[in-house]
Amino acid sequence: MIKVGVVGGTGYTGVELLRLLARHPGVQLTAITSRGEAGMPVADMFPSLRRRVDLKFVTPQDAALEQCDVVFFATPNGIAMKQAAELVAAGVRVIDLAADFRIRDIAEWEKWYGMSHAAPDLVAEAVYGLPEVNRDKIRTARVLANPGCYPTAVQLGFLPLVEAGVVELSSLVADAKSGVSGAGRKAEVHTLFAEAADSFKAYGVGGHRHLPEIRQGLVRMAGDQAVGLTFVPHLTPMIRGIHATLYGRLSKDVDLQALFETRFAGEPFVDVMPAGSHPETRSVRASNMCRIAVHRPQGGDTVVVLSVIDNLVKGAAGQAVQNMNIMFGFDEMQGLDIVPVSP
Amino acid sequence: MIKVGVVGGTGYTGVELLRLLARHPGVQLTAITSRGEAGMPVADMFPSLRRRVDLKFVTPQDAALEQCDVVFFATPNGIAMKQAAELVAAGVRVIDLAADFRIRDIAEWEKWYGMSHAAPDLVAEAVYGLPEVNRDKIRTARVLANPGCYPTAVQLGFLPLVEAGVVELSSLVADAKSGVSGAGRKAEVHTLFAEAADSFKAYGVGGHRHLPEIRQGLVRMAGDQAVGLTFVPHLTPMIRGIHATLYGRLSKDVDLQALFETRFAGEPFVDVMPAGSHPETRSVRASNMCRIAVHRPQGGDTVVVLSVIDNLVKGAAGQAVQNMNIMFGFDEMQGLDIVPVSP
Amino acid sequence: MIKVGVVGGTGYTGVELLRLLARHPGVQLTAITSRGEAGMPVADMFPSLRRRVDLKFVTPQDAALEQCDVVFFATPNGIAMKQAAELVAAGVRVIDLAADFRIRDIAEWEKWYGMSHAAPDLVAEAVYGLPEVNRDKIRTARVLANPGCYPTAVQLGFLPLVEAGVVELSSLVADAKSGVSGAGRKAEVHTLFAEAADSFKAYGVGGHRHLPEIRQGLVRMAGDQAVGLTFVPHLTPMIRGIHATLYGRLSKDVDLQALFETRFAGEPFVDVMPAGSHPETRSVRASNMCRIAVHRPQGGDTVVVLSVIDNLVKGAAGQAVQNMNIMFGFDEMQGLDIVPVSP
Amino acid sequence: MIKVGVVGGTGYTGVELLRLLARHPGVQLTAITSRGEAGMPVADMFPSLRRRVDLKFVTPQDAALEQCDVVFFATPNGIAMKQAAELVAAGVRVIDLAADFRIRDIAEWEKWYGMSHAAPDLVAEAVYGLPEVNRDKIRTARVLANPGCYPTAVQLGFLPLVEAGVVELSSLVADAKSGVSGAGRKAEVHTLFAEAADSFKAYGVGGHRHLPEIRQGLVRMAGDQAVGLTFVPHLTPMIRGIHATLYGRLSKDVDLQALFETRFAGEPFVDVMPAGSHPETRSVRASNMCRIAVHRPQGGDTVVVLSVIDNLVKGAAGQAVQNMNIMFGFDEMQGLDIVPVSP
Repeated sequence: MIKVGVVGGTGYTGVELLRLLARHPGVQLTAITSRGEAGMPVADMFPSLRRRVDLKFVTPQDAALEQCDVVFFATPNGIAMKQAAELVAAGVRVIDLAADFRIRDIAEWEKWYGMSHAAPDLVAEAVYGLPEVNRDKIRTARVLANPGCYPTAVQLGFLPLVEAGVVELSSLVADAKSGVSGAGRKAEVHTLFAEAADSFKAYGVGGHRHLPEIRQGLVRMAGDQAVGLTFVPHLTPMIRGIHATLYGRLSKDVDLQALFETRFAGEPFVDVMPAGSHPETRSVRASNMCRIAVHRPQGGDTVVVLSVIDNLVKGAAGQAVQNMNIMFGFDEMQGLDIVPVSP
Repeated sequence: MIKVGVVGGTGYTGVELLRLLARHPGVQLTAITSRGEAGMPVADMFPSLRRRVDLKFVTPQDAALEQCDVVFFATPNGIAMKQAAELVAAGVRVIDLAADFRIRDIAEWEKWYGMSHAAPDLVAEAVYGLPEVNRDKIRTARVLANPGCYPTAVQLGFLPLVEAGVVELSSLVADAKSGVSGAGRKAEVHTLFAEAADSFKAYGVGGHRHLPEIRQGLVRMAGDQAVGLTFVPHLTPMIRGIHATLYGRLSKDVDLQALFETRFAGEPFVDVMPAGSHPETRSVRASNMCRIAVHRPQGGDTVVVLSVIDNLVKGAAGQAVQNMNIMFGFDEMQGLDIVPVSP
Repeated sequence: MIKVGVVGGTGYTGVELLRLLARHPGVQLTAITSRGEAGMPVADMFPSLRRRVDLKFVTPQDAALEQCDVVFFATPNGIAMKQAAELVAAGVRVIDLAADFRIRDIAEWEKWYGMSHAAPDLVAEAVYGLPEVNRDKIRTARVLANPGCYPTAVQLGFLPLVEAGVVELSSLVADAKSGVSGAGRKAEVHTLFAEAADSFKAYGVGGHRHLPEIRQGLVRMAGDQAVGLTFVPHLTPMIRGIHATLYGRLSKDVDLQALFETRFAGEPFVDVMPAGSHPETRSVRASNMCRIAVHRPQGGDTVVVLSVIDNLVKGAAGQAVQNMNIMFGFDEMQGLDIVPVSP
Repeated sequence: MIKVGVVGGTGYTGVELLRLLARHPGVQLTAITSRGEAGMPVADMFPSLRRRVDLKFVTPQDAALEQCDVVFFATPNGIAMKQAAELVAAGVRVIDLAADFRIRDIAEWEKWYGMSHAAPDLVAEAVYGLPEVNRDKIRTARVLANPGCYPTAVQLGFLPLVEAGVVELSSLVADAKSGVSGAGRKAEVHTLFAEAADSFKAYGVGGHRHLPEIRQGLVRMAGDQAVGLTFVPHLTPMIRGIHATLYGRLSKDVDLQALFETRFAGEPFVDVMPAGSHPETRSVRASNMCRIAVHRPQGGDTVVVLSVIDNLVKGAAGQAVQNMNIMFGFDEMQGLDIVPVSP
């Protein structure tokens, strides 16, 4: 049993972490913090946790986080970078579900996130937590940067193509669609039910924070070649789920189905579907699975990859638990052997 | 490990049974039947089951159901009544998720279901599987009539009031709202997305098949007094969930909150919420929990009970597994210790 | 052509008023106010109005409202009561879509709305704008209290029964379900898409502000007899629409269908559906129609009325335009001859 | 007043035609046919039309279609091609909302639609009814091929780029998302609410019937140059709306905003939004408008166009009425001056 703390438990990634950790047999949840709600039982805010999670929110000061084995930050951007150093110094391993440690290039991070970075040295040390790429480094990570939701779906979809060098890197397109929970639990007009239901829109076409994160990942996969990527996110009237539709131009003639199946053979959370498949987001709902199908429409030179995840699980809390499992030597599926909820 | 068969696995209660049984440690799924889809892997029809359920559909003849310990019927009404006798004779216990064994009065059943009953003797023997009322009889049942979805939510909500004799029995009202999955996986115009989304309607106001089932249950709770019940079901634009809003006139002045908490103390799947609560259906999504709140608006003589379940779990497959657990001596929460999925 | 001003145009009733008034041939929209957004073209906030409404928001000071023939208040509660007197003195007729002038009993109003009333004399003079009850008084009203959304659906459904004295007044039940737009365009957590979608809940069971408004209306219809009403509102995962399911105990044996058809004969916006009907909210979507069906389940002594409206039209902006039409001698359907949008 | 008949009135394009035609001042609806429902009042099937459309369905034989000025076919593919010749011979003008006359190349049509064509000569004569491209030819058309829903959104979005020759034609990408009403009113499992809600998927990636239609249109715009197009449609959990996200590689440096504004200047139903905009499908809900925004992310060489329509209006019935207006000399906005319904 390891001792686990959660900083910032009032958002969707927080409550989702609790849903998963509550049933993890190797975990003892010791503290969940919220400045604003200290003293309130967590299940009062999230009745779905009644009878399953008995904790009350505590202030960060009362949380005794330095006695944990691992602390998850389910906080807004810019929090973990200020608190991680002290925890790491105390021997606590840190998993950040926000963006603080995802971008190597500090100037680039500061441009996209609009603040100065408080811990550049930890960025240098941090491991990017995409297990399908970085599993070995994750085992020993002290600071783990859990990937963003879009970046997870998009990178997993492009991974076999880019690693194998079979697509032109200059003009990749990622057209991605997210459920509304991806926008978080903040009260905002544009994510009200009466605004977001029964409608569909793109946003951030001019530039979205996940673009540099995805590009950085693709560049690494490509052995540091430059990558031209157009990334367009869309808001979809559903609660959970990301569907990434990826387009590339083939530079080599390969057996795409075999390429994908070989690359992900043995991966516990990537399911390459049979040729001709169209994965639905609900086929992974509430689970840590990523399902992928690869198409070559009418035998032309364009490859189309369909990649679906649950944005709150493989795109956030579930991948964080998967990373924790790797870091602490648990079976990678521990706490994550969930059958998706469908319908 | 008990051997379990499922007859009729292509509907929503079937796939939900598979979701739950796939993770039940005491169960070996041996067969799932479908005449139409025999030979097809179950996960080809339900991709959410990929990597979790490896079975193919088989014909009833090939299923060797008589070698099972228990067989679930997730079939339309009128199937189980024809096949149960043979299985029971072979020592197999039967759990019917349809309505064949729910109504004691054969003539009443035939009136509402529009066919003659093929096994009246099994009706006489069958146990109505509402554990909160019938737990002891369930243990030894050979034929188990799993309650309907509306009847589960409505009976649990009225139970403490009717048993304690504190409401006028002549004019109970149950205004119930169901998600669309309650209508099943049949292709019909009125449950198409473009028909049922962003709209709300009542149906069956003149008489719904669950009315006699609920009334029978209330009559028993009332010690065989007559019960006057108005039951109005509604179709709600959501996938899962039933919300029953129940109205009664108080005939005695009691502490309603204490009455409910006492009645359901120790029940693993009934959660009496604090006074003043308004349970949401999502707070039980994908779980076997029933959450109940009791109100007495402005201290008047009307009691209002709010009762929510997931229609596919506590209202169908989950309650069936709960009954199986009781019948076979498993821990009642085995396979059902699910944290609801919210958001 | 009459000159029309709108105070408070950034909420849903405001934009809906603009949708309707933009096509009204007898109306010249002269000003729409918003303190916060003054100077912004209305269509920048509501792109659906591009090319249809050319106005910019102005401050109340710049609006020259005293030169209007009529001013609509689409403001939060408590605004119109402070500004109406001055306008009325200037000869401007006022239609308040909020609750300021709906409740005769000032003390009752102050209890439910939590503030002191600024214009009790105008309350005494104000006409309650339910045309099916008050058409004659509406013609000459200087201050028009536009009914609430729930009160419109509930009162129209009970109207024939209560006026005719055929139900017991002591135990009426109104179980009402609203789309989420009824909660307005304020940024709040509980009406976020990820909170309100795919879920259903009751709220305000202990007491909702529309209860005294409905009760007042029923008491008047009943010739000042006391009325016992239980009112339970629910939040439904749809954008628009109210479905009221009404329950009463019959005290006389009458032909209910004929009673309803006779009462509403000639009403342009009340459609009594054939016996046995179940109106859907989408059958009135975007229109000013109220559709009603009356049932007597299994010939018992309980009457069930189903009443549906679009909460933003007949429940707010449409009824306000209907009232304006009556007040200014337009054809009552002017600007409101809309075919509902379905699917 | 022209006499108008509708063949096939029981689907979504049929009921939408009725919604629009019912309020068109220049139109007398004389017949609406349905073999299966002959004799039934149209408003019994579509209660939204109660009090607005008084017709009953009639058999095609009883419809006296040859006395109409124009007949709309709102039928499945393959019907109009069998019946149009006789009507045209009788001097009736035909507007087909299905695909029978859309594709010039008969062999291509037969390949994609899986049947032999019954009227190749009418295909040769037919005018493709995209007013923004073909307005002059439409005026005199005897047979009008109303464009498909996806083809309308995609062609309008690409039009300025392709006509002006500023994008590489070899690798255009159209990633399109449709509401579920696009699949029609047929009872099918995959469009049930419980299947399509709260989920998102691509379909037809290997080849969709709208691909050759779009490609044919782009080739014409390009002056008969070859066009390489990848088209991926997706099913979105909303009732109405298409959002096309279009990608192309710029071959010239142009002022994209000016290019679009100039090309569509004066178009009554194309709204080029300000630079940086993200049109939502709800901003055109229930209206005939197409809203378009053009982006050049981060100043690179990729152009991204966002194009939204209501699939049942500009994508079907509304465009058909627009074409009728042009054919018969009505004001092009007659019957179509609708303010979109939002929220």
